[in-house]
Amino acid sequence: MNEFDLIEKYFNWKNLNSNDLGIGDDCALVSIDAHQQIATSVDTLIEGVHFPKGTSASDIAHKALAVNLSDLAAMGATPKYFTLALTLPEFDESWLLDFSSTLRVLANQYQITLVGGDTTKGALSITLNVTGTISQGRALLRSAAQAGDHIFVSNSIGDAALAWRQIQQKLTPSDQLLQHFNTPNPQVELGCALVGVANACIDISDGLEQDLGHILKRSNVGARIDLSQIPLNKEVQSYIQKTQDWCVALAGGDDYELCFSVAPENLEKLKAIEKNLKIKLSEIGVITQNKGIERVGDFDKKCQSYQHF
Amino acid sequence: MNEFDLIEKYFNWKNLNSNDLGIGDDCALVSIDAHQQIATSVDTLIEGVHFPKGTSASDIAHKALAVNLSDLAAMGATPKYFTLALTLPEFDESWLLDFSSTLRVLANQYQITLVGGDTTKGALSITLNVTGTISQGRALLRSAAQAGDHIFVSNSIGDAALAWRQIQQKLTPSDQLLQHFNTPNPQVELGCALVGVANACIDISDGLEQDLGHILKRSNVGARIDLSQIPLNKEVQSYIQKTQDWCVALAGGDDYELCFSVAPENLEKLKAIEKNLKIKLSEIGVITQNKGIERVGDFDKKCQSYQHF
Repeated sequence: MNEFDLIEKYFNWKNLNSNDLGIGDDCALVSIDAHQQIATSVDTLIEGVHFPKGTSASDIAHKALAVNLSDLAAMGATPKYFTLALTLPEFDESWLLDFSSTLRVLANQYQITLVGGDTTKGALSITLNVTGTISQGRALLRSAAQAGDHIFVSNSIGDAALAWRQIQQKLTPSDQLLQHFNTPNPQVELGCALVGVANACIDISDGLEQDLGHILKRSNVGARIDLSQIPLNKEVQSYIQKTQDWCVALAGGDDYELCFSVAPENLEKLKAIEKNLKIKLSEIGVITQNKGIERVGDFDKKCQSYQHF
Repeated sequence: MNEFDLIEKYFNWKNLNSNDLGIGDDCALVSIDAHQQIATSVDTLIEGVHFPKGTSASDIAHKALAVNLSDLAAMGATPKYFTLALTLPEFDESWLLDFSSTLRVLANQYQITLVGGDTTKGALSITLNVTGTISQGRALLRSAAQAGDHIFVSNSIGDAALAWRQIQQKLTPSDQLLQHFNTPNPQVELGCALVGVANACIDISDGLEQDLGHILKRSNVGARIDLSQIPLNKEVQSYIQKTQDWCVALAGGDDYELCFSVAPENLEKLKAIEKNLKIKLSEIGVITQNKGIERVGDFDKKCQSYQHF
């Protein structure tokens, strides 16, 4: 059983109000009043699972907050506050100083405040719960893709996955790859700008195809994606040319870029966003009525998506 | 450095609005609009630290939600939703079934909904973040005790601590003690009823004196407590008589009863609450202008409070 089946089977109680949303999207949505909803998301990072042993406290802090902000971004929510549950094997002052100061810098950058937490002793693990607000009914949902929508991805993908692959092979990734892996930039500004422009949206944390697959499943549609249009940086491109290992791009995860679908009539608005935010947005395919993902391009290697269990 | 100093030093950024409250109380308070505040609290339970290895999934689920609801109770907030970060060493269907069904029963009982979560693989650990709402400015704060207030404790204390002591000594606690330790009842109804009646309030999670001490420190006051008035059940009473080990009552923790202070003019209202909720409330002392805790009664053994590091 993978993580999604597990959550669906044991923890999806489906007892929320009709406007609200529980398990099954990047964030939960809870109505606070007639005008506003709370968007909230929780993620745990464990040493040896989500980051290699020896990762600096600063990189861990960055990643922990960034991956959670990325979930808010995927809903179009504005960050408001977060809580921190920190489990440490021992009290280490320089570790805590590094961790807390990086956390604070990133929190200030994204205008989100740490309001509470818990510290415990045990194997190194960091759980953050971030909360944002969004106007009632305006969140970008996984379930809102329509056949005919154009599919976009922000910036480039596969960088973090290639870094992780190299680390596992005891190679040293380039600084650029390592930066993508250790200090990803959550696309909060883009997410907020996409409200009213994109239909469905998700952040790429488990791999492009798996995450796009969540949109397709929830929206009851399919997709055709053109491999040649997937935005890859030079290192990833040359790695794939050499190895034909497309998995770093399609199933790699950890990029925290946004994948979203836009109706044809909103493409002009999207161009304006791209220009305003000075961000690269690549059209990689279209939403189709046929279920599943159809891959167009020179590709025949099978990719397994990451399974938590 | 203990947990409180650690949080104060590294994570108390003090950058909230003046009406709001970050680290330093049972919950954080964040204003959502002019009428409402969000009260939010996070707690981590780790196997071997917060519950013994071999504790049933059902008891773990109960405790995890109960201790967090207890933090809402201590602020007088009404439970609304919670998130769950669950770290499991392996996929175990019967464990998950037990865990999720108990969690659901307790959540229904307290009218709180699970809205999101994360599951990861690793040493068994459960982090819950509960969120409630409270009318703007009405939360029961640690900082609101006044000299002359009467100090109360709900039900009895020391039961959970005695159970834990016996477990550590390889003894088998009675069913009643075990029930207090494994399935504490958060005093949510009492907490809500105390809004407008109590001044300061806290839940007893780390031990009566340590938790009362938080109220005293934040309120810049002291307390005189009468040991003979501390509500103890028969087992705890006879254990203390035999061993003179007052620590189970004063420094034991894990009772999740409320300790609160009430101004003399509100004592009649408190009597009405006691009657309505059919709950035992014991007056154990008074808030004083002199700092520190003065113990009245037959007691000379020193108790160390629980330190996280």
